[in-house]
Amino acid sequence: MNEDDLIARYFAPLAGADGLGLLDDAARMAVQPGHDLVVTCDALVAGVHFFADDPADAIAAKALRVNLSDLAAKGATPRGFVLALALNTYDEAWLQAFARGLKADIAAFAFPLLGGDTVKTPGPVMISVTAFGLVPEGQMVPRTGARAGDALYVSGTIGDAALGLLERRGTISAGQGGAHLVARYLVPEPRNALSDALRAHAHAAMDVSDGLIGDLTKMMRVSGVTAEVQLADVPLSSAARAVIGEDEALFATALSGGDDYEILAAIAPDQAQAFEQAAFQTGVPVTQIGRVMQGHAPPLFLSKTGLPVAFSKGAFSHF
Amino acid sequence: MNEDDLIARYFAPLAGADGLGLLDDAARMAVQPGHDLVVTCDALVAGVHFFADDPADAIAAKALRVNLSDLAAKGATPRGFVLALALNTYDEAWLQAFARGLKADIAAFAFPLLGGDTVKTPGPVMISVTAFGLVPEGQMVPRTGARAGDALYVSGTIGDAALGLLERRGTISAGQGGAHLVARYLVPEPRNALSDALRAHAHAAMDVSDGLIGDLTKMMRVSGVTAEVQLADVPLSSAARAVIGEDEALFATALSGGDDYEILAAIAPDQAQAFEQAAFQTGVPVTQIGRVMQGHAPPLFLSKTGLPVAFSKGAFSHF
Repeated sequence: MNEDDLIARYFAPLAGADGLGLLDDAARMAVQPGHDLVVTCDALVAGVHFFADDPADAIAAKALRVNLSDLAAKGATPRGFVLALALNTYDEAWLQAFARGLKADIAAFAFPLLGGDTVKTPGPVMISVTAFGLVPEGQMVPRTGARAGDALYVSGTIGDAALGLLERRGTISAGQGGAHLVARYLVPEPRNALSDALRAHAHAAMDVSDGLIGDLTKMMRVSGVTAEVQLADVPLSSAARAVIGEDEALFATALSGGDDYEILAAIAPDQAQAFEQAAFQTGVPVTQIGRVMQGHAPPLFLSKTGLPVAFSKGAFSHF
Repeated sequence: MNEDDLIARYFAPLAGADGLGLLDDAARMAVQPGHDLVVTCDALVAGVHFFADDPADAIAAKALRVNLSDLAAKGATPRGFVLALALNTYDEAWLQAFARGLKADIAAFAFPLLGGDTVKTPGPVMISVTAFGLVPEGQMVPRTGARAGDALYVSGTIGDAALGLLERRGTISAGQGGAHLVARYLVPEPRNALSDALRAHAHAAMDVSDGLIGDLTKMMRVSGVTAEVQLADVPLSSAARAVIGEDEALFATALSGGDDYEILAAIAPDQAQAFEQAAFQTGVPVTQIGRVMQGHAPPLFLSKTGLPVAFSKGAFSHF
């Protein structure tokens, strides 16, 4: 099977109209007048960002969803993606499952395949997705726009994926909640339903992919501000709460581990109620965890009693 | 050094205005009204598409240029790119040289960096570039538009890179011409200067990256036509001519090997003269090598005496 056969069999059936049947060297995309294109890129490597023996449809879903999550944070409506796929072997069952995973999320998120490249590698499988979204002109939600006084919100619950990774590795045993945590690691739930609410109400947003502590620190730094977070307000799933109840040190893992793919947003105080209402309409839970403050120090994390808590481990970093 | 430091040191200085200093999760791109965005993606893997010990600036140039070549073939003006880079080790000298190579071509082709992702891999270095270009609405030059009667043109010379790869491997010894052939393999010369002429005059075009025979066969198949090529008319460099003079079998290598990154175009007969003139203005040589014909058989390659020649090896394929 050569590259063209592989594309024709597995990927051409997934191509949107702009993808021209994957018969050309390029996709052609008309951009609606009055809109900006939002472009983001996230790559996953087997053994680094997922387990090589994870189900191939879950790997495909993760590769799309980490990018969909970035579009959500920017307030952008998904428009399509290109896929660079490096394969070590030609494994028909794996490719079928991978294509099935793509197909499901292409449908679920109205996110067509536009093009890509398939190459051979002697190394691990690598999947690089470049994702496109649309926002009304000038309305992309920046990471850099947080202002002192803004309320800080996160979507969903924090730390599940980091704890799920420990469960997957056998480092912890989360009992009943383990399956939930592992599932949260395996396939993120991008919060694209929130993108309109973010565009309408947020000064700044990003998706939490490298741990809440590290990503909040980044957002505050590039916005030229700092923050105070009430640790008791950070939303945890009951599964996370249970394992942290057994071993309090895992709270640091929950806050600094990666792969949450939840939204962190800074909302002007006079917009907070409207943001909460808009989020409520979408069914995505959002929780205020703190406030943006003047200053350039790293964010402060405060215990229930108001004492600052230091975390020895920063954000999960691939380097 | 973590990923953020690496991006700040090596890549943020290369970012165009739309790249937002690489401080955000995404780039924001305004698309000129009345234009379509052309999107293409090509990935390179060390040991597959380049030698791991090739100079890092040349690797960077090749990663950009194979994509610029696709934009050229589509008649598109380069607009920018995103870069997914998988690194095995943190090698400061390599990264400096790689960034220097990017910087030179960013300037040479007015092709800004818009964003990307940097990840760690236990495998070989992989570079995936997604490139953006602009064409006036509806005017992307397709691969699928060749019509019976069209004149077939190629730019530059064919086969240098395939022979350069043999020279680089020590399989052949091309003497004086060896350096030229190796250079043609190492760093392609994308024909972006031709893009306006292609948009004005071509029914169909693609860049020749997998060998002239294979790529012509693809273009004819997706256009629903076939072709006749006069082998004596295929333009060869003097270096290629010299090694083929020594060993005639290398002519098949020249025609079927990859990495030419020249343009193959189908031009209506009444546009041929205008196309030649427009190409002449750009300084890029173009040569008619044959004609598009009705039919669905693979293209015919004819010797000087008019006899069909069969090539046992088709296009270079990564699978």
